[in-house]
Parts: sequence; structure tokens; C-alpha cells
Amino acid sequence: MNSETATALVAAAIETARGMGLSISVAIYDEGACMTAFHRMDDAMLGTVDVACRKAKTSVLFPLTTRDFGALCRHEKLDGMLGTNEGLIGFAGGMPVPGGGAIGISGGSADEDETIAVAATNTL
Amino acid sequence: MNSETATALVAAAIETARGMGLSISVAIYDEGACMTAFHRMDDAMLGTVDVACRKAKTSVLFPLTTRDFGALCRHEKLDGMLGTNEGLIGFAGGMPVPGGGAIGISGGSADEDETIAVAATNTL
Amino acid sequence: MNSETATALVAAAIETARGMGLSISVAIYDEGACMTAFHRMDDAMLGTVDVACRKAKTSVLFPLTTRDFGALCRHEKLDGMLGTNEGLIGFAGGMPVPGGGAIGISGGSADEDETIAVAATNTL
Amino acid sequence: MNSETATALVAAAIETARGMGLSISVAIYDEGACMTAFHRMDDAMLGTVDVACRKAKTSVLFPLTTRDFGALCRHEKLDGMLGTNEGLIGFAGGMPVPGGGAIGISGGSADEDETIAVAATNTL
Repeated sequence: MNSETATALVAAAIETARGMGLSISVAIYDEGACMTAFHRMDDAMLGTVDVACRKAKTSVLFPLTTRDFGALCRHEKLDGMLGTNEGLIGFAGGMPVPGGGAIGISGGSADEDETIAVAATNTL
Repeated sequence: MNSETATALVAAAIETARGMGLSISVAIYDEGACMTAFHRMDDAMLGTVDVACRKAKTSVLFPLTTRDFGALCRHEKLDGMLGTNEGLIGFAGGMPVPGGGAIGISGGSADEDETIAVAATNTL
Repeated sequence: MNSETATALVAAAIETARGMGLSISVAIYDEGACMTAFHRMDDAMLGTVDVACRKAKTSVLFPLTTRDFGALCRHEKLDGMLGTNEGLIGFAGGMPVPGGGAIGISGGSADEDETIAVAATNTL
Repeated sequence: MNSETATALVAAAIETARGMGLSISVAIYDEGACMTAFHRMDDAMLGTVDVACRKAKTSVLFPLTTRDFGALCRHEKLDGMLGTNEGLIGFAGGMPVPGGGAIGISGGSADEDETIAVAATNTL
């Protein structure tokens, strides 16, 4: 992950969200789980800031979509897993980015958040 | 603070830092001390992420520049103050933004960080 | 637990994991739930660091395998238990070590992690 | 930082400490401030675990020795800096490792800890 890619991902996520009529927070984390870029759209709920960040972080620490990570935790009965690493997310909206790092979206439904994450990543 | 202003502040801070040959993190927080935008330039030290965020947060919670806030804490012997609110900053690089919210810069010396924060704010 | 035993456990766990084609984190905690040794193999997911540590810690604080501890919490409806002690683990991969202290493994499936923990402990 | 280098650094630090009659904790962190290896010698004070880890982390987040980082914070009156990033260390015993990552030592005096960190790093 670098600054240029992070900027492009944030812009693509915001544009996609706007087209869907949604107000979101978008977080980009690098390969070491360090925040690289973040943006909260006007009217995005305050609670989305932390959720977007944790989704991105989760998809770096365990390189899966947060949807798949949540399904894995449930299927394998990984009780307590979501409480590790200061709190992980087990529903859709976070995913690894090709080349390294991850994106996290929060503001719509989990499905909508994932749609935005996928759309942003596909622009790379 | 809104999304448009936050985006403009981040862009202005990065442009200024680049002109000074510095790699910084820049954080924009709104009137409620909630993160609105963040960007870490390539080569900015990892530790600058948290410092930039805390500078912006400090200047929202106590609407002074972090330079003035630090001087106040020292002068008035406000022992323990910097440990409140999960950790505040008492050196230059954070300042309120006219109209509400605050900007925090980390990556150069405290003086350089403040120069960047002032330059970014002056573009509004 | 002492330094010599901890070193032997770490080495045995790594050797076992390598033989299984897995990249793991291994944590050894002493009788007082204090970290004694830790190692993250190359390519182990970043999120495994915290999980391995919490598994070892869990098996010291409640001297059961983390598998049995999780089953107990579910069976007895110990709601909130996994959120105590800053976060415990309720799936396989952690176990007490004869003589005192515990080992925690993370990186494979829960079953694989447990296999490694058992193998390492059996070398004592 | 990789597993092999981390193992060598831990072994060299322990050997040096033993030669000095000291019981220490040694922590190795990678370029992203993630723990790679850790060892606490028998009789090392319990409090040294966290100190060694924070020293290594500090020297990754701000790539200086913790001695120099502390001196910088004092000289530049960076009040509150040591409270960022969940707590940094401003005295000797942590230092960056050539090639990336950092080592942190705790158990002796700050000077002794630094001597051990330097000796371990020099074996690379």
C-alpha cells in the first residue's frame, strides 16, 4: 500500500457510495496494519469511523474478507477470536487489497459496504 | 468541519509538506472530536499516525493550538492533564480550524508541523 | 516454567509446524500469566501474535485446554466470560504445560494448533 | 526482520546479559511494529516484559534509539509524546536493527540494557 493507491481507493469508495446514496467511512491500512488513509463523508454515522478502521485492520491481520473471516469464526466456533487484537470485525465490508494492505467500509448495510469495497478495489 | 473542507486541508498539508521535503501524517477532526479525514504520506514514520490524530483531537477538546495548550499545562502546573482523554499533546503541530474542528500534523519537528498546519488552514 | 523449558517448547512447536507446512506464532506463559517466550515464524499471519498469547494466557488463568474452556463456557452459558481478563480464547490451541505455565499456538486451524501444542508439550 | 535474524538477536542478547550477570527480557519487533520474538530470562523482573516490548516498538515507530528519542522529547519539550502509541519509552535499551525492525532490552540499568542491545545487533 502506498499513498497514491490509498488516495485512489478512498476516492473510488466515496464516489461509489455517493452513487448508491450512502454516507460512509472508508479506511485504508497498509501491510503492517498501520492506517494509511481515512475519510468520513458528511452525514456518515459517528460510529462508522471505528468500524471502518477495524474492518481494514481485520483484513490485514487475517488476510480474508471480513465476511469470510466472520463465517470462519462462526463455522469453526472460534469463540473469543473477535475479541483479539483489540477487536476484530466478523461481517462484510473489509477486504484485502491486491498488492498488500486492506480497505474497510462502514455506513451502509454490511452487503452495501462490501459492494463499495469491491468496487473501489476493482478500480486499481 | 465537513468532508469538502477536510479534503482540502489534507491536500494543502501534503502539498506544503512536500514543498518542505517532509513526509507527514495529517489528521482532521470535527467539532465532536471525531476523525473526519487522515492521510499518511509515503515514508512518514509509523509513529506519526497516532501523534497527528492526538494533536487534532487535543485542539478540538481544548480549542487552542497544541503549542499553547502545552505551555498552559506547564505554566499552570496542570499535572496529569496530558494523560486525560486517553492522551493529549502539549507541543506544536495541532490547531483549531476556523469554522470548527481541528488539524493535526506530525512528521517534521514540532515547529515544522505547525508551519504546515498554519499553511493548510490559511488556504480556507 | 523457566527459560530453558520455554526455549525447548518454542523450538519443538516450530519444528512441528514446519513439518506440517504451517507458519505459526507460539507463546509460552509462566504460572503468573507473564510472557516467558514468543516466536512468530516467517509468513505467519500478523493476527496470530495476539491469538497465541491469549491462548497461553487463558490456559494459565483457567488451567484447562482452551478447547475445554470454550466448551465449558458454552455449556454453562458463561456469558461474558471470554471478555474477562482483557480477552480470553475459547477454541483449541492453548494448553497448560506439566509443571506449570502454558503454551499457545496460532496459525493453522484450531485443531492443527492444538496438535502442535500437544506435540511440543510431549517433548518435555 | 525475519525469524532467523530474530532468533539470533535473542540468543546474542541473552548470552551478553548472562556474561554481565544480568537477567533480562528481550523483544524483537518487525518493520511494522509487530512482535517477532521475545524471551524472558529466569529471574528477570516481571515488569521487564512490557518495557522490553515498548522499547522495541518505540524504535520502530520512531527509528531512533530510545535514548535518543527520549533526549529529543526532553530537548524539544515534546510533552505528551511518550503517551502516544499506547506508551513509548524515552530511556536507553531500544534501538533499530540494520535492515529493519528493532530490539528492546529491559532488566539492567538503562545503560546496561543499551550495551546488550548494541552487542546483540553487532553480531548480525
